[in-house]
Amino acid sequence: MLTNMSEFFLRTLRDDPADAEVASHKLLVRAGYIRRVAPGIYTWLPLGLKVLRNIEKVVREEMTAIGAQELHFPALLPREPYEKTNRWEEYGPNLFRLQDRKHADYLLAPTHEEMFTLAVKDMYSSYKDLPVLLYQIQTKYRDEARPRAGVIRGREFVMKDSYSFDIDDAGLDKSYELHRQAYQRIFDKLGLPYVICEAQSGAMGGSRSEEFLYPNEMGEDTFVRSPGGYTANAEAVTTVVPDPVDASDVPAKELRSTPGASTIDSLVELSNEMYPREDRPWEAADTLKSYVVTLTHPDGTREVVNIGIPGDRAVDEKRLEAAFAPAEVEIATPEDLEAHPELVPGYLGPEVCGPNSDKRTHDEDGNPQGSIRFLVDPRVVDGTTWIAGGNKVDHHVYNLVMGRDFTADGTVEVAEIREGDPAPDGSGPLELARGVEIAHIFQLGRKYAEALDLKVLDQNGKTQVVTMGSYGLGVSRVVAAMVESHHDDLGLSWPMIVAPFHLQVLAAGKGDEIMDTAKELAEAVSAAGFEVLFDDRAKVSAGVKFADSELLGMPYVLVVGRGLKNGVVELRDRRGGESREIPVEEAKTAIIEELEKNRGSSR
Amino acid sequence: MLTNMSEFFLRTLRDDPADAEVASHKLLVRAGYIRRVAPGIYTWLPLGLKVLRNIEKVVREEMTAIGAQELHFPALLPREPYEKTNRWEEYGPNLFRLQDRKHADYLLAPTHEEMFTLAVKDMYSSYKDLPVLLYQIQTKYRDEARPRAGVIRGREFVMKDSYSFDIDDAGLDKSYELHRQAYQRIFDKLGLPYVICEAQSGAMGGSRSEEFLYPNEMGEDTFVRSPGGYTANAEAVTTVVPDPVDASDVPAKELRSTPGASTIDSLVELSNEMYPREDRPWEAADTLKSYVVTLTHPDGTREVVNIGIPGDRAVDEKRLEAAFAPAEVEIATPEDLEAHPELVPGYLGPEVCGPNSDKRTHDEDGNPQGSIRFLVDPRVVDGTTWIAGGNKVDHHVYNLVMGRDFTADGTVEVAEIREGDPAPDGSGPLELARGVEIAHIFQLGRKYAEALDLKVLDQNGKTQVVTMGSYGLGVSRVVAAMVESHHDDLGLSWPMIVAPFHLQVLAAGKGDEIMDTAKELAEAVSAAGFEVLFDDRAKVSAGVKFADSELLGMPYVLVVGRGLKNGVVELRDRRGGESREIPVEEAKTAIIEELEKNRGSSR
Repeated sequence: MLTNMSEFFLRTLRDDPADAEVASHKLLVRAGYIRRVAPGIYTWLPLGLKVLRNIEKVVREEMTAIGAQELHFPALLPREPYEKTNRWEEYGPNLFRLQDRKHADYLLAPTHEEMFTLAVKDMYSSYKDLPVLLYQIQTKYRDEARPRAGVIRGREFVMKDSYSFDIDDAGLDKSYELHRQAYQRIFDKLGLPYVICEAQSGAMGGSRSEEFLYPNEMGEDTFVRSPGGYTANAEAVTTVVPDPVDASDVPAKELRSTPGASTIDSLVELSNEMYPREDRPWEAADTLKSYVVTLTHPDGTREVVNIGIPGDRAVDEKRLEAAFAPAEVEIATPEDLEAHPELVPGYLGPEVCGPNSDKRTHDEDGNPQGSIRFLVDPRVVDGTTWIAGGNKVDHHVYNLVMGRDFTADGTVEVAEIREGDPAPDGSGPLELARGVEIAHIFQLGRKYAEALDLKVLDQNGKTQVVTMGSYGLGVSRVVAAMVESHHDDLGLSWPMIVAPFHLQVLAAGKGDEIMDTAKELAEAVSAAGFEVLFDDRAKVSAGVKFADSELLGMPYVLVVGRGLKNGVVELRDRRGGESREIPVEEAKTAIIEELEKNRGSSR
Repeated sequence: MLTNMSEFFLRTLRDDPADAEVASHKLLVRAGYIRRVAPGIYTWLPLGLKVLRNIEKVVREEMTAIGAQELHFPALLPREPYEKTNRWEEYGPNLFRLQDRKHADYLLAPTHEEMFTLAVKDMYSSYKDLPVLLYQIQTKYRDEARPRAGVIRGREFVMKDSYSFDIDDAGLDKSYELHRQAYQRIFDKLGLPYVICEAQSGAMGGSRSEEFLYPNEMGEDTFVRSPGGYTANAEAVTTVVPDPVDASDVPAKELRSTPGASTIDSLVELSNEMYPREDRPWEAADTLKSYVVTLTHPDGTREVVNIGIPGDRAVDEKRLEAAFAPAEVEIATPEDLEAHPELVPGYLGPEVCGPNSDKRTHDEDGNPQGSIRFLVDPRVVDGTTWIAGGNKVDHHVYNLVMGRDFTADGTVEVAEIREGDPAPDGSGPLELARGVEIAHIFQLGRKYAEALDLKVLDQNGKTQVVTMGSYGLGVSRVVAAMVESHHDDLGLSWPMIVAPFHLQVLAAGKGDEIMDTAKELAEAVSAAGFEVLFDDRAKVSAGVKFADSELLGMPYVLVVGRGLKNGVVELRDRRGGESREIPVEEAKTAIIEELEKNRGSSR
């Protein structure tokens, strides 16, 4: 189809939008692809909508190829099913909730596990009906605390979400693998680089889970990779647990005066001054830091927890959040601490917490009570020796040995991952990188099927709970990731497969001949089945047209200009290829041939 | 593409859903096209989604043909723009409202006039940019008081809404006409009957407005048509105003005792008994009925209004609503009446209301006050003589002459339209019919552009307010209308142009030969570019397969069954055509030829 720029609903902007920090956000707004309506809520202008639809097309093709069937659920959903799976509460403030005119509770769905589960329950009843893969491409809602980077993290966004239903774990593995491969084909087709990272399943429940990340410095997710091929989201990395240490030679613990040493740095400095050891100086790694947090559980109850981690490691906020999900975590407030007078800020140690406390008892169900829970970093193994808070102002306890002088209620993975930490699978030291989550695949298992009572009859006529997978792909986010990976200083640069137009034709110069020739060629290429944008604007300079074409980023640009008097036109390859002059009489054939050769290309 | 029924996400139901009253609702649910999630909120199962997308495709083609450009606005919108046009309030309880985590007000958009206006304001600044036609196909929300009939009146629905922007009225007329013609082509292509009715523009504001109705008894809208070709929505019909009557011979008004005659019927009976007239009996048409309503204006103020209409006419609720929109109307409550002790229930007449009341004064702006407003039916012209309430229990006043004994604050169109009433354009007596509104086109004029300050520079460099049109088409509702017009007792019956599959192939009988031949033919037709549904279910009887195929309603059904041993297969035309036997060796060619001949057909 041929679109005349003089009539096209498009205005390019000279300046970056004030709120934009990343390239994709800036360029998509400046080039007239999207417009902001509210925080995290965007309009898709004609150019942006074309790209979005082209990406959807690739996704649909690959979903169809693995036998997935498309349907479409409402975005506005009643509370009940989400209540049954606990997600009405667990989603917390991320869920848009509303009431209808009869005061019934509704939500705007962030994902549709519940609805797909109920649909299969409604339609199917036998193992013979399984497996089934179902998907939709749909507008979704999430009330993000910090929407950012244009359509990278929006509050209304387009997602492809699919779900698999199998009778057994082997079936789930197969459905999971089908999606994994389909996603690889999708991103390969789009020419979008990705890494597949082990992930935590977070609020979704379930077991195996991987994220597809587009690696880029502007990404919000940290991931790790090792020389041996291990890749994981930072939240999912497990610490390599050291062997227990023989502490039989360690002297008895000793409470020492450490006036004013309420921070790790001052404690190390003071220890080296007042209590130097012979073989080597004290280091932050010798101290056990107490990190006190308050959890808000989904039922609203608050719980103070003390976490002991080596003093040389910071707490990673995302790992902290992931470790305690679905509870929300915050640093304990002064009010939280007041309720526990045994906790002495700056001098808090393990001995008054968890199983070490005299106050520790257990309720009827065996749950600990009386003292707050005490969890430690996995590196705090039996026999390790620490300087820890003495639970008394200006005092610390030295030679405190894990397993001898204190124990914990368990371990927790909240310490930061560092460049050079060992990969959990032994594949070498970890390297840290950042990326944008573009897809996520989960083995949900039976959590949703159990909550919503999705059972079928098996081969023996017995009812079995169905096992499920959930597979999301952020279609609108992929638009932005495509821009991040396909642009230069001048503007966008689309690969053929997603470009809103395959060719932009510039009438760059004055006179009817230039305009007529440009129009003729634009029409000819359009008639050959390509999308052509014809810059037919009469009173716009060639310079502006060039700059606009570079900003808009169509893969090919045909310039009909000064060269025409020498009988040539110029075909430019926006994607970094050569530009070449073509005799005007051969132009139509040559251009169509070039476009045809690259139809659907991801370059 | 070929879809095997054994793997297809589909279950047909034997029974109609309990809540379904109309054929389309029953059949779409029973045949597995849609499923209810909440009142007025439906899931589109794979079959239903295919039909929806096919209709969208037709709509897109015709929108593109008139030069309209597609974009996509969010459904979740901030309050501000709707506040500026007053629609945040005017929409009343029909609007889904919600707050985000920061307690900012949002809505789920029912239509997008505001957003399109702001988009054009953002992008365009000169008359040279106009006209522009923009549209989207989008999920919309309306918190209907009475969702009904499946996807006919839903709370989440798919709509194509487009908007035109012109510099002057002539341009608007042209844009309006383009849409009108495009809609005619769309419904013609779909084979969906329609009438174009004059309409009231209601809460949308603006001037010229027409509805496209699919005429059907199950419809909620009443429309009228005349032998001379006049068609209008009942709300839009204007009364033919009679000429004034010479009342110089009418005796003076007279207050008479009418004990117990507090209804029109009893008043007529009593008048004929106690006060018979010589020439003919009294009739309801001789009485002037007082109909007292309370309006709730958008700003929340309540106003009691008395409406005088001939006693032989009922009030039409929809005309009543339309007449006072955007105010909401209800019958005056006892509390409302108590505030006006001059209103004597059952005996209320014009003399204590409106300009006839001694209490009538005017405020500084000339607005009437002191007495409630009194409006009359347009048939109450000067010189007409009435029996009306005497504003005293058990009394009426006779020989009350309009213009002599009382006047009104104006006229109002709330009386029912009756079969045989004259068409306002003189084209003959009106016939009444019912229909479903499938599209609505409006000349909005400058209301939204003024409220949101959309101005462009004209030829003389002066700023001009842009004039707009708004053109909605109910895509999901059209699915239901298509079913209403394309079904029989056995089930659905899709025309080729929207059918989810063009051909359903039945392997109807036992044995590998039947299954293999059926599969081979299904594959061959699919390979020729048609959508084929292959009923390959192994343990399902031929009878069930036949019944399912009739319920599902694909335009062609190929039966490979008993005839195969005589070398023939049977091609059935579901749409009421002949079924014919075809030698199996010619089947592939014959079927493809038949389908090709009818590709895109609306039959």
